[in-house]
Amino acid sequence: MAQYLPPIRDMQFVLHELLEVESRLAELPAHAETGRELIDQVIEEGGKFCSEVLFPLNRSGDEEGCTYEGDGVVRTPKGFKDAWAKFREGGWPTLTCDPEYGGQGLPHAVGMAFQEMMNSANQAWTMYPGLTHGAYDCLHAHGTPEQKQVYLPKFASGAWTGTMCLTEPHCGTDLGMLRTKAEPQADGSYRISGTKIFISSGEHDLTENIVHLVLARLPDSPQGTKGISLFIVPKFVPDANGNPGARNGVKCARIEEKMGIHGNATCVIDLDGATGWLVGDPNKGLQAMFVMMNSARIGVGLQTLGLMEVAYQNSLAYAKERLQMRSLTGPKAPDKPADPIIVHPDVRRMLLTQKAYTEGSRAFAYWAALQADVAHGHPDEAVRKDAEDMLALLTPIVKAFITDNGFVTTNMAMQIYGGHGYIREWGMEQYVRDARINMIYEGTNTIQSLDLLGRKVLGDSGAKLRKFGKLVTEFVEAEGTNEEMAEFIDPLADLGQKVEKLTMEIGMKAFQNPDEAGAAAVDYLRVIGHLVLGYFWARMAKLALEKQESGDPLYRSKLATARFYFAKLMPETAALIRTARAGAKPLMDVEVELF
Amino acid sequence: MAQYLPPIRDMQFVLHELLEVESRLAELPAHAETGRELIDQVIEEGGKFCSEVLFPLNRSGDEEGCTYEGDGVVRTPKGFKDAWAKFREGGWPTLTCDPEYGGQGLPHAVGMAFQEMMNSANQAWTMYPGLTHGAYDCLHAHGTPEQKQVYLPKFASGAWTGTMCLTEPHCGTDLGMLRTKAEPQADGSYRISGTKIFISSGEHDLTENIVHLVLARLPDSPQGTKGISLFIVPKFVPDANGNPGARNGVKCARIEEKMGIHGNATCVIDLDGATGWLVGDPNKGLQAMFVMMNSARIGVGLQTLGLMEVAYQNSLAYAKERLQMRSLTGPKAPDKPADPIIVHPDVRRMLLTQKAYTEGSRAFAYWAALQADVAHGHPDEAVRKDAEDMLALLTPIVKAFITDNGFVTTNMAMQIYGGHGYIREWGMEQYVRDARINMIYEGTNTIQSLDLLGRKVLGDSGAKLRKFGKLVTEFVEAEGTNEEMAEFIDPLADLGQKVEKLTMEIGMKAFQNPDEAGAAAVDYLRVIGHLVLGYFWARMAKLALEKQESGDPLYRSKLATARFYFAKLMPETAALIRTARAGAKPLMDVEVELF
Repeated sequence: MAQYLPPIRDMQFVLHELLEVESRLAELPAHAETGRELIDQVIEEGGKFCSEVLFPLNRSGDEEGCTYEGDGVVRTPKGFKDAWAKFREGGWPTLTCDPEYGGQGLPHAVGMAFQEMMNSANQAWTMYPGLTHGAYDCLHAHGTPEQKQVYLPKFASGAWTGTMCLTEPHCGTDLGMLRTKAEPQADGSYRISGTKIFISSGEHDLTENIVHLVLARLPDSPQGTKGISLFIVPKFVPDANGNPGARNGVKCARIEEKMGIHGNATCVIDLDGATGWLVGDPNKGLQAMFVMMNSARIGVGLQTLGLMEVAYQNSLAYAKERLQMRSLTGPKAPDKPADPIIVHPDVRRMLLTQKAYTEGSRAFAYWAALQADVAHGHPDEAVRKDAEDMLALLTPIVKAFITDNGFVTTNMAMQIYGGHGYIREWGMEQYVRDARINMIYEGTNTIQSLDLLGRKVLGDSGAKLRKFGKLVTEFVEAEGTNEEMAEFIDPLADLGQKVEKLTMEIGMKAFQNPDEAGAAAVDYLRVIGHLVLGYFWARMAKLALEKQESGDPLYRSKLATARFYFAKLMPETAALIRTARAGAKPLMDVEVELF
Repeated sequence: MAQYLPPIRDMQFVLHELLEVESRLAELPAHAETGRELIDQVIEEGGKFCSEVLFPLNRSGDEEGCTYEGDGVVRTPKGFKDAWAKFREGGWPTLTCDPEYGGQGLPHAVGMAFQEMMNSANQAWTMYPGLTHGAYDCLHAHGTPEQKQVYLPKFASGAWTGTMCLTEPHCGTDLGMLRTKAEPQADGSYRISGTKIFISSGEHDLTENIVHLVLARLPDSPQGTKGISLFIVPKFVPDANGNPGARNGVKCARIEEKMGIHGNATCVIDLDGATGWLVGDPNKGLQAMFVMMNSARIGVGLQTLGLMEVAYQNSLAYAKERLQMRSLTGPKAPDKPADPIIVHPDVRRMLLTQKAYTEGSRAFAYWAALQADVAHGHPDEAVRKDAEDMLALLTPIVKAFITDNGFVTTNMAMQIYGGHGYIREWGMEQYVRDARINMIYEGTNTIQSLDLLGRKVLGDSGAKLRKFGKLVTEFVEAEGTNEEMAEFIDPLADLGQKVEKLTMEIGMKAFQNPDEAGAAAVDYLRVIGHLVLGYFWARMAKLALEKQESGDPLYRSKLATARFYFAKLMPETAALIRTARAGAKPLMDVEVELF
């Protein structure tokens, strides 16, 4: 019963008006030709594919789930395979791939919009191409020329899919403990043995071949994370013509029953002397895999953005239709037996929270994608470095801040439906169940917060954060005398100053005691998340003020949402800063026996 | 794979040491004999029943769910019926029932502890006796002597179960719109026709009869909530001997597929000229039903308390066993390949949040139950009135604050398991799915907040709130010069003052514009929730300080948890007060078209 309309106008606002992607892309030789017309066409056609092909399979895919048919065979839900064929026919897998390997070479900023819509339509299905995209990025960066020739065109065309095989039963976060072994063979290949778990898209019936990227240990490799290497392990070993050849010793042992994303097969993968080939340098597997991991982390943020959007659309439609109680200030629909629930203040709070987080995250995530484009393709090295730094800083925020907020907002969408939200029929509870995994996989949100505070901020003494801070300061200074902007600029500037102080304080404390970083990290990430979101909402408010008389209601809508964000959401930082400052003592002074 | 140990020691701490129930009960003629020994025996034996009989059916009940077998017949999951037989054999349904109707007449404060354990063990199963208990309370208060004679012994013995039939497809919150009709018959009965939805325990195979309490309209009754009457509609009409006789025209049309509580049948109930009997006065059905509703609201808080406890126990055990990464301050288990994750600050934050909310809610909910005992049975009318007021004030807080926190904490329990939390096998995701309904049914948490702020606080110009405030002030004054208590007393006193100001401010604004109450209510309820929880944590800290040298680690544990609560959870009020004060404008100024 759910519905989905691609939010074309809002995407255009973000890409063309807020981020001005055309002029940014014009500086990049590879994308200089990507004009507005092409971008709009991709979004519109992509939106049709998502809403017409993927969306109708979302609930049925959840109900049916994947089936383990025995002997390593997994069947995806009805319709998934046809949708894959249409995906290939439309040329969608090639979108952002390198033309050298059959791709269309479009910028990430455009690919991101398509990814968002795919996830609104069907997160479980979208994980099949999503992980393939990560595998593509990883091999593109670290594969040998031969590996690229064999695998990249297959990924780009959607002929084959990819997986990332990291987790083992005894280790997920702590990959240093992994045990899967790789023994060198005379022909330059490796025999790989071990068991991997939680392998999304690990087995399925969509494509003729599946290519696993597997972390394993070489004999006599150092202990811990410094002794991990990366291998390509295809389900069918490509023959001389690049077609699937001999069946390899890699097999799905079973699939997991889980809370959500039922349409995606989460596999236990047994490697029993499977043939694999080294990717990149021996013992440098984790660094190589991090290309895929970073791509996946941004991808998870996009998954949640997609869910937030579709959940919002549905709860908004319901709030306009569902009649229940009269407004506290008197009937608003006197001709009806009750008022639509959108008249009630708390229903509005739940709708506007969804709207502010969704649209703010869109601005923020697309901007991150643009940084990826600049980092890859700008002719000036200093500009590339700045974009790389910004992307490194933002990646854990895109992953954790968006997914935490997305769980809040999909739950609000469900809450607006009351009892009907808890019933499967309406589709809302599926969004909550699907959104929940996003806070866990590709590094839990706690891990993201440690990455942000420990590695990205304290690790370079705040240099990357200052680069972002400079953007904020420049905007604050430019608008500081604009009275109309004061309601946005004042709290943003105030938060900026508080972030500076807080970072310094935590840094000093963590220098004495590293647990202080661990104790503050989760709160800290949310504070920075609000600084980023506040920056984008203030920028959107500025545009909206300039264009509010244009007749397009979008600008007045942005202005109202920005006001809501600063009044009702950003104040969360008042509590977060306090709890971050409360430090490690209340956590670490407790003896284990007292829990 | 989940486990459950009844938290006997902590229950005893709350009942005997914190609340001193024996001396409070000694003032109540009906319960004067309820000594500590009897209470402990009930808890211990009750705990065995819950952990040995109900708990093993929790996951299997979720997996199997209820089955609609056609023609109105519903089958509960394997084992549910046997458990019901054991429940009756043990005399558990009779626990708090009136001895006049075959009950044991134990106080609510004791029944509450048993209810908590049943819910830890199996929320879906516990809803069958839970709703029966509400139906019992309602008929006990409003039934005719004949109705009581026929039905109450059947409820007390667990021979029959009860339901509450309020919701219809077009109305849940807004019962004023309900359409089910009741036509008077010559014999004094009524013919009732209509469709009810979301009827928990509406049909099942546990008992020989099911008694529906149904809201319906008499002919020519006033519109809205003033024209609603309450009827008893048994599935089988009792014969002259009180045994199930003729099959009545009330039938389950189907059961809902839902997110959780799969072991409980959520039914669509068709009434097709069913025979019913009026309960209480015509057109006063909603008031009569409110007895059941208030009992159910406290019950929902208890459901969540149960889930919080069992989720905490499991995530704690996992955090002690699961080895992953080294402590940031150096290895804590150097003989093992990694440290148990309980060494990590954020894992501790998630554990202590669960612990602080769980144990705080236990103190708070049991105290509320004690108010119910006092309200029912104290010889002094003024004391009864005070207890009634306290219970009225606390009911929406027990319901909404505990269930909101419970959704946070069961999610934290799941998060501690990482990817394993998302997999069904470990049982954690079921707690999240089950906990989710508690924020919705028996009045959504927004409705609770409006009840608190609108009816309970502003409705009597703060009189009830001042009664609770007096307890806080007395405690603050008594401990104000106790230096050891300053870390708890100072923030509690500070919050007390802020609540006073905030209440006044919202009251003034709401007087001008009722939407101001609607806009602030949800934040306001959480602020009051923290005042209540802070009061109980401060009182527990005081006891703990006095007894920390006793050798029982419970007291040091309480002290550490109280410190955590004041340092890391209560500061949330800093943000809540800001957003409550931000008022209605950012919500209500947005035209519907701009959403």
